[in-house]
Amino acid sequence: MINNTYYLHEGRTDVSLKTYVINEAGEMNTQGARPAVLILPGGAYLNCSDREAEPIALRFAAMGYHAFVLRYSTYGEGKPGFPEEIFQPEFEVKPHLAHPAPVMEVAMAMQMIADHAKEWCVDTEKIAICGFSAGSHNAAMYGVYWNKEPINGVKPAALILAYPLTDYLMMKVADQNDMMKMFFKRSTSAFLGKKIWTDEELILVSPALLVDENTPPTFLWATAKDGMVPVQQSLRMSQALADHKIPFELHVFEEGDHGLALADQSTAMAYEQINADAAQWVGLAERWLAKRFALQLPEKLPGFENSVV
Amino acid sequence: MINNTYYLHEGRTDVSLKTYVINEAGEMNTQGARPAVLILPGGAYLNCSDREAEPIALRFAAMGYHAFVLRYSTYGEGKPGFPEEIFQPEFEVKPHLAHPAPVMEVAMAMQMIADHAKEWCVDTEKIAICGFSAGSHNAAMYGVYWNKEPINGVKPAALILAYPLTDYLMMKVADQNDMMKMFFKRSTSAFLGKKIWTDEELILVSPALLVDENTPPTFLWATAKDGMVPVQQSLRMSQALADHKIPFELHVFEEGDHGLALADQSTAMAYEQINADAAQWVGLAERWLAKRFALQLPEKLPGFENSVV
Repeated sequence: MINNTYYLHEGRTDVSLKTYVINEAGEMNTQGARPAVLILPGGAYLNCSDREAEPIALRFAAMGYHAFVLRYSTYGEGKPGFPEEIFQPEFEVKPHLAHPAPVMEVAMAMQMIADHAKEWCVDTEKIAICGFSAGSHNAAMYGVYWNKEPINGVKPAALILAYPLTDYLMMKVADQNDMMKMFFKRSTSAFLGKKIWTDEELILVSPALLVDENTPPTFLWATAKDGMVPVQQSLRMSQALADHKIPFELHVFEEGDHGLALADQSTAMAYEQINADAAQWVGLAERWLAKRFALQLPEKLPGFENSVV
Repeated sequence: MINNTYYLHEGRTDVSLKTYVINEAGEMNTQGARPAVLILPGGAYLNCSDREAEPIALRFAAMGYHAFVLRYSTYGEGKPGFPEEIFQPEFEVKPHLAHPAPVMEVAMAMQMIADHAKEWCVDTEKIAICGFSAGSHNAAMYGVYWNKEPINGVKPAALILAYPLTDYLMMKVADQNDMMKMFFKRSTSAFLGKKIWTDEELILVSPALLVDENTPPTFLWATAKDGMVPVQQSLRMSQALADHKIPFELHVFEEGDHGLALADQSTAMAYEQINADAAQWVGLAERWLAKRFALQLPEKLPGFENSVV
């Protein structure tokens, strides 16, 4: 496994691409170039969650795919936890960390993977992007902007969106409690780098409103009881994909709050983040991905001398 | 992830311990010392299979456990594939690579993990050993010899034995075809470092005959149609565990040949090594392991400011 960290901006360590590249020598080398999954952790554009980083990469690597974790620009500049200053009345915006930096960094990461395709043995026509929460918003943003100016980037083969935010206009009427409303407003400030904004600006960062025939096939999952990003956001994106005849798969689990990640102990900080029902999304995504990404193998082993005992 | 390789013998690269240590900073650090799984690939004591090395480590690491791969002494001295010379009529034995070297190296690996427990954040009371084929024989050997001279080593908390060889006496009457019989005889020569042997010698390397009250809890799985190591070997070991009231779990799948590893594309060199039924062993082992190894977490997250968005 090639386990390196690349920093995307000179003089900054908050934006990085970490590699989990399968390169075991010998027998496993016969499989040729492998598909890859680029992982975008969530964190409300305030930080990048560790729970939605390495554990996810290990899970996809265990399926036989190269994995990469992109930590993109956030208001917290790479520090863990949520930055307290954004919750103060007189918070300052940080436009250089705001949109479009996060989605431009996805483009940089995709290009970096493509540039290393030979060295890492990547099938560049099979790179999926898997995001969580704000990370899945960022993934969906790349999914609808990848072939447009100023990105014109590497085509993503598929999107995996975990409890995504997809429509900022719709969030204005979301059924959230007051604390969540305040939290979401500050997250939006962090993301837009502004304290006030127009509906026109919100539309331009709402992937569900921008889906077109170039949006890649998409797998979505969420929980119906998500108290932070309402499940309607996943349904809204699914409607747009259905309307545009983009292949998609959607799983909504009845129970479970926002941010379950793998929903098992590998990503849980407390038992309430373990949920055997929601944890099924990994197997569902694995099967869905395999329809596109399954490794091409010979039917039979070449002969006894090459069989493994 | 700490991804290092340690060589166990000076001047040799064929015997190594590779680490897959979970050390993501930040949120995931709250979980404290983690259990670990030491993986022993198979290969008939002729080589160490890559298919039963890194992909297995990634799967256990994805469960939230540290993982380690031990490549122990084999006749092939670390080279891939099976060494041709052992199949020649005038092959030479290599006693320095033969028993007890492999099981002594398991002891060295266990001690090395214990010695690094603080640095790697390992719960040394929760180290399981997971072996495949010859590797599961080696794991079972450590399971019955760990507290005896000359080992007196670190106690293994559990064994996971995939299609194990457990009783060399019983192998003498195994229903194998002639090619398999020849292959197995040469593998036994490689393992014992001799061309002829006595029943007394075979008994001393037959874990099923040596189970006692200090043998750790054991999970076993095999396929009923294994054409190389008959399923009777798993049943024999299970009998011994049952007789000694050692907690154990056994899963025999009806179909599938020897050496399926994870039985999915992550370890397959050909489609015939993919088997959705047998692949269930991973989930079964995960649940069984969790009964002993489940991470200890608080019931609830401390509060909103620490929740992950």
